[in-house]
Amino acid sequence: MAVTFADRVELLKASDIREILKITQRPEMISFAGGLPAPELFPVEEMKHVAVKVLEEAGSQALQYSTTEGFEPLRRQIATRMNPKYKTAVNPSNILITSGSQQALDFSGKLFLNSGDVVLCESPTYLAAISAFRAYQPQFMEVPTDDDGMIIEELEKILRTTARVKLIYIIPDFQNPTGRTWSLARRQRFMKVISDWEIPVVEDNPYGELRFEGESLPAVKSLDSKGLVIFVSTFSKTFCPGLRIGWIAADARFIEKYVLIKQGADLHTSSISQREISKYLELYDFEAHIGRIIDTYRSRRNAMISALEESFSADVTFNRPQGGLFTWVQMPRGIKAAELLQRCLQQNVAFVPGDSFFPNRCVENTFRLNYSNMPEEKIAEGIRRLAKVMNEL
Amino acid sequence: MAVTFADRVELLKASDIREILKITQRPEMISFAGGLPAPELFPVEEMKHVAVKVLEEAGSQALQYSTTEGFEPLRRQIATRMNPKYKTAVNPSNILITSGSQQALDFSGKLFLNSGDVVLCESPTYLAAISAFRAYQPQFMEVPTDDDGMIIEELEKILRTTARVKLIYIIPDFQNPTGRTWSLARRQRFMKVISDWEIPVVEDNPYGELRFEGESLPAVKSLDSKGLVIFVSTFSKTFCPGLRIGWIAADARFIEKYVLIKQGADLHTSSISQREISKYLELYDFEAHIGRIIDTYRSRRNAMISALEESFSADVTFNRPQGGLFTWVQMPRGIKAAELLQRCLQQNVAFVPGDSFFPNRCVENTFRLNYSNMPEEKIAEGIRRLAKVMNEL
Repeated sequence: MAVTFADRVELLKASDIREILKITQRPEMISFAGGLPAPELFPVEEMKHVAVKVLEEAGSQALQYSTTEGFEPLRRQIATRMNPKYKTAVNPSNILITSGSQQALDFSGKLFLNSGDVVLCESPTYLAAISAFRAYQPQFMEVPTDDDGMIIEELEKILRTTARVKLIYIIPDFQNPTGRTWSLARRQRFMKVISDWEIPVVEDNPYGELRFEGESLPAVKSLDSKGLVIFVSTFSKTFCPGLRIGWIAADARFIEKYVLIKQGADLHTSSISQREISKYLELYDFEAHIGRIIDTYRSRRNAMISALEESFSADVTFNRPQGGLFTWVQMPRGIKAAELLQRCLQQNVAFVPGDSFFPNRCVENTFRLNYSNMPEEKIAEGIRRLAKVMNEL
Repeated sequence: MAVTFADRVELLKASDIREILKITQRPEMISFAGGLPAPELFPVEEMKHVAVKVLEEAGSQALQYSTTEGFEPLRRQIATRMNPKYKTAVNPSNILITSGSQQALDFSGKLFLNSGDVVLCESPTYLAAISAFRAYQPQFMEVPTDDDGMIIEELEKILRTTARVKLIYIIPDFQNPTGRTWSLARRQRFMKVISDWEIPVVEDNPYGELRFEGESLPAVKSLDSKGLVIFVSTFSKTFCPGLRIGWIAADARFIEKYVLIKQGADLHTSSISQREISKYLELYDFEAHIGRIIDTYRSRRNAMISALEESFSADVTFNRPQGGLFTWVQMPRGIKAAELLQRCLQQNVAFVPGDSFFPNRCVENTFRLNYSNMPEEKIAEGIRRLAKVMNEL
């Protein structure tokens, strides 16, 4: 005999982003590659305070095993914040705390996907969602997407002609990688179609609270009368990612199953981290904190868009996101983002080629730019260098 | 259409222990049910200190995304502690930090098991390992076990007559649920057989450091010349479980795959929790801390064994564990542990019926007793009540 791995292991590969991130650790690098929040905005002093406070108040209970569902006061705080923001109507029993929203994506694959089942997603879509689902050996179908979201006619065509569609994965607010936001009309039409077909939807919303301008839109979940939408979010972009605290907000029939999956997967999320975030929400003005993140990222978005407008030639297009962390660049056909990256790395500039964001297709002339992790002057300088290399190609 | 779950979801059920634990929250309850460490031994004051210290020294970096493999200094500290203790020869690159050892079990199922593959385990075995593996739809085969560990002749018979054995799961030190420890001779014979068959082994060792008496035995991994053994452990029983920090120590060819699985599952384990444990190991005398846990649990083990000897009739047998958290009781045939539990709950005494620890068989006349979470006088009183109810049956 010899050691053999499960079939699913053949499908797993190292995330391109994490590989690029290893290269971009060097301090001289101007990196637009990661999706890293700005660490200078992390509430370090406040975290010192709440860490001590939690241990003073809860003592050893904060260090003991706790329930799979999560710390009840935190689940309540999440539900209470979500409802006015997203027009949802969830209560604490609809919330499961997860180890980051990545875990919520993994669990969604585990809950819904047999090998060969079909997942629909935007085209392009978030690459770590592709990785999470891929472990359950589905087929991906990319639904064509425009500036307003999934194109509903295309979605309907796929639903009519495709068997075994078990899950639809969407990022309606400031999408990763494109920075696009679905219009209200598109959300409504989408939900109408989904209600007819009764297919579970994972609405991934890590960036929704980071809106720089314009009016917040109701979550797709808020338009869902049949309890089909599983809303997934995280404190990674509004608080800090290092604690690994995310959540799922869904109908009880789903939460019940997610809890069973979480029991087998890791019992529960860190007792003390949950209490720390809960205590922070109790003691500090979280909305003001998010306001500071928004102000910083808005300036960085502005710096990036200005630099792109200034340096890129007219045949290169890009989005102007109203929030979130990313914009998306489309170059003329024939220019390969992977080649551009190799040359840019020599100039100490990094980004992520668009390829990784398409589960099936090979789209070589796109790339994703992150602006949340670099100060404005570096953004300007980085885009100048990038444009120079691009013009040489 | 209607919402359908993946096939694996049908196999998931709520852990009996977690259900019993809900009932045992009441303060008047004498619970031998959970596997909870004694919270009065958690290093609460030290945790306050290291939480602040980590944020002072690492600042926002402690709150940022970090590598999937884990915090390098902690991986080094784990390797350095493991090698003299278990006679292993691992280095930091062999270590992956996981969110508790439960996650290591889940990942092991994900890495090795296709639907229908066979997992061999001790009989009985740890019920949360059964839950973790079950999500990957294997068949379980229970290898008959005596006081020295798996019976090698039985193991060989199964290997000769069974196709698709992909993974062997063992708990050689102070096993959950029985409290048994494999003898050195059994470890050596086991490893000789496994070397011939070249089947991956998960050696789960959460309790090995909690030895009350007798000499420590080398890990099965230390006898492994072909890199087949995946050693899994945790800080849950020696430090505290609420932080959810465990690890896998394995050959690079396995670690590489586990890292890919972890990327898709939750990106990485909490940056700050890893740094906190690492800082604790740097600043405090962890061995002295473990010494205090051992002293406490030894007294509790003694209290329980004395009470069992005093109160139980001669036809009821139980183990005298040399370490760990549990002992295992076997009653005469015909007495049902589930019925005993129902009556005991009315007397405010709880334990876990043995059934849940057998993946295939129905063994009604056994149960598991935990002694780590109750003070000695409650242990004595609880066992008295339990024996009284048992004698009535």
